[in-house]
Amino acid sequence: MDRYLVISSDGHAGPRPEVYRDYLDAQYREEFDRQHVARLEMLAAAGERLEMLAESAKWAEDKSYGLAGAWDHDRRNEILDADGVAAEILFPDGLTEQNSPPFGGDLALSPLGADPELQWAGVRAHNRWITEFVSMAPERRFGLALVLPFWGVDEAVAEIRWARDRGLRGIMLPCMWLDQAPYHHPKYEPMWAACQDLGMIIHFHSGPAAMQDYFGAALFGAHSSAEPAVEMPGALGVYVTEVAWWLTRPLWFMIWAGIFERYPKLKTVVTEGSTIWVPELLELMDHRFSEHHFSAKLGSGYRKHLKMKPSEYFRRNIRVGSSAMSRREAEMRHEIGIQTIMWGTDYPHPEGTWPITRDIMLETFKGIPEEEIEAMLGGNAAEFYDFDTEKLAPLAARIGPERSWFREGAA
Amino acid sequence: MDRYLVISSDGHAGPRPEVYRDYLDAQYREEFDRQHVARLEMLAAAGERLEMLAESAKWAEDKSYGLAGAWDHDRRNEILDADGVAAEILFPDGLTEQNSPPFGGDLALSPLGADPELQWAGVRAHNRWITEFVSMAPERRFGLALVLPFWGVDEAVAEIRWARDRGLRGIMLPCMWLDQAPYHHPKYEPMWAACQDLGMIIHFHSGPAAMQDYFGAALFGAHSSAEPAVEMPGALGVYVTEVAWWLTRPLWFMIWAGIFERYPKLKTVVTEGSTIWVPELLELMDHRFSEHHFSAKLGSGYRKHLKMKPSEYFRRNIRVGSSAMSRREAEMRHEIGIQTIMWGTDYPHPEGTWPITRDIMLETFKGIPEEEIEAMLGGNAAEFYDFDTEKLAPLAARIGPERSWFREGAA
Repeated sequence: MDRYLVISSDGHAGPRPEVYRDYLDAQYREEFDRQHVARLEMLAAAGERLEMLAESAKWAEDKSYGLAGAWDHDRRNEILDADGVAAEILFPDGLTEQNSPPFGGDLALSPLGADPELQWAGVRAHNRWITEFVSMAPERRFGLALVLPFWGVDEAVAEIRWARDRGLRGIMLPCMWLDQAPYHHPKYEPMWAACQDLGMIIHFHSGPAAMQDYFGAALFGAHSSAEPAVEMPGALGVYVTEVAWWLTRPLWFMIWAGIFERYPKLKTVVTEGSTIWVPELLELMDHRFSEHHFSAKLGSGYRKHLKMKPSEYFRRNIRVGSSAMSRREAEMRHEIGIQTIMWGTDYPHPEGTWPITRDIMLETFKGIPEEEIEAMLGGNAAEFYDFDTEKLAPLAARIGPERSWFREGAA
Repeated sequence: MDRYLVISSDGHAGPRPEVYRDYLDAQYREEFDRQHVARLEMLAAAGERLEMLAESAKWAEDKSYGLAGAWDHDRRNEILDADGVAAEILFPDGLTEQNSPPFGGDLALSPLGADPELQWAGVRAHNRWITEFVSMAPERRFGLALVLPFWGVDEAVAEIRWARDRGLRGIMLPCMWLDQAPYHHPKYEPMWAACQDLGMIIHFHSGPAAMQDYFGAALFGAHSSAEPAVEMPGALGVYVTEVAWWLTRPLWFMIWAGIFERYPKLKTVVTEGSTIWVPELLELMDHRFSEHHFSAKLGSGYRKHLKMKPSEYFRRNIRVGSSAMSRREAEMRHEIGIQTIMWGTDYPHPEGTWPITRDIMLETFKGIPEEEIEAMLGGNAAEFYDFDTEKLAPLAARIGPERSWFREGAA
């Protein structure tokens, strides 16, 4: 094949709020209507204060044709074909794009101020919708069920089974627990067991961060001291500096907790936080795992339940979705680990590669050995997610980026 | 001079609790007695559950002669002379070493559950004690006043002035704000102004981290959901993986907030979190500062108040105390920035270089060009802190490590 099979590790899909309404259990629709109006008013008010939202709205207006691929089957295939993407992993859509699942069932799945019953209702609306959306093109779409771990592990396990029964093979968990128990808490054990037993791949996705820290209590809640609303200069700079850390934080809780020791086949992915941090994180954890003078006061209790080094669990059980992957990551690929990297578009988000996917892809990969490009653009994802590559082959042969484009000296 | 001038960027000093009691304002001594008993009981109870504390207690018993240098003038000079250290920056002592300032006035300066009046009383007891301890060897000891920023900025500024009047030239602030306002909040402006005007160098010191996340609500509080006490496997592994991040976090809040733009002479140090993270943090912030396709939805509001790149503020205003510096850091010194690195012992803490300082120093620096060792071992600190190197020269000539030891091929 003279074209690459491309699998995007990071796609977003979700219908407009009024469509989500139809997927809610009937008893939640009245509350949905009430909150929907309130949310639109809140966003309008925030938009005046936050330049980010205003710019985002303008961007969305300009790109409305392509953005409809977030929920429209044909439009999505059209855009993906043009981008050269054969298949993708599907997360819910983002906050700023206005088509998030309701009741805090969005990308953040934040427990902050959430009503557990309503949040489950919102999450289930998405899970119902995504199973339908996946079933329209099952060979191209790997959909994730949203799962809330904080409001009872039994209910989380039941939702995981529900999703598996309907053909989904992955879930997304919140990467921030805030005042809830972190992922090394033993109460989550049945959830990890269910994911391993059912072959459900766990995902964390970038976006959530300590918003109340950046923008202040008045906008985002959670400060105990009632601070008046003030401009927080540089807040967004802080956010973009540390957001990837909040995404990846569950990994070291899971690794140190021995979850991958007890569930050796459990698969986990973190998506859209770049891969740049991988070498240093592995170096750091392995150093902390080793015995030396400086760790004398720590004892050995924190590591005796791990039979392998932290980096070995990472290499075996974890992959990283690198959305709009940079040239710098490609250059660091051996240090990061080529098998770790799964390229992604982040379509239809404005920080992703769409609509200039081919340009960015070439900038990232040009001149790199073909078998390495092949692995990062799709091969790694095909293997980790067990995509049916035979079924995808004819599509890739038609729409995939040509191998020749990436060769040194190609125009 | 055939010996190096060594300045440790990381020393800890503080008397036993019963001595701190004498430095408290009289009205707080009764409460001190009550809490002191309760604290001893709590530690004894925790010691049974936490292997760390038990190991630490054993370590302290073995090292009791040297540990007395935490409060004893002669003993400290004796130990430092033997270690080859001419001068040092003095932080309060740590939690596990049992001689922390009272009422939460310790290394963490945590606002969690603190009583502002009592915490100020504890902090002032230390500030009084440290001014005396410094005055016994002012050329060797650079003491830091502890300052609480969360309970009113005016009071913080008053304490900074008090400390400056008594000869101190630096302060330590808490690196974790928890539910208080982070350092980009405009209310702190008078504090930054006072530090610049009075030439007070701001310090953050490693140790605090999200303890309630690692060890659970029952031990460390702060989970809203009342979780029962359970073993959290690997908790300590998580702690040592992310503790340096919590230390360095104030830096990017301060940089993005434009504090170093408005106070170009303000100096800030972060201590005991290694220096390994420096290259990647600067790369990341500068990338986030630059305009590109992926930042389209962010607008420019978060960076237009910065006239330089984040890395340029870092290089100008910030230094890093590298305690028990590793060979790996020495090998990465050009990437980290030689001028950024200030070696430290962490005496008298068990994770520091004492009592094998010379061995570790040689392991770290052997074969590196002399002028670079000179900068990292003491030259950078001498310049940043404005030590009187002429006064220190005879001492360094007597006790400092010999340059010849570090040369390739030396025994």
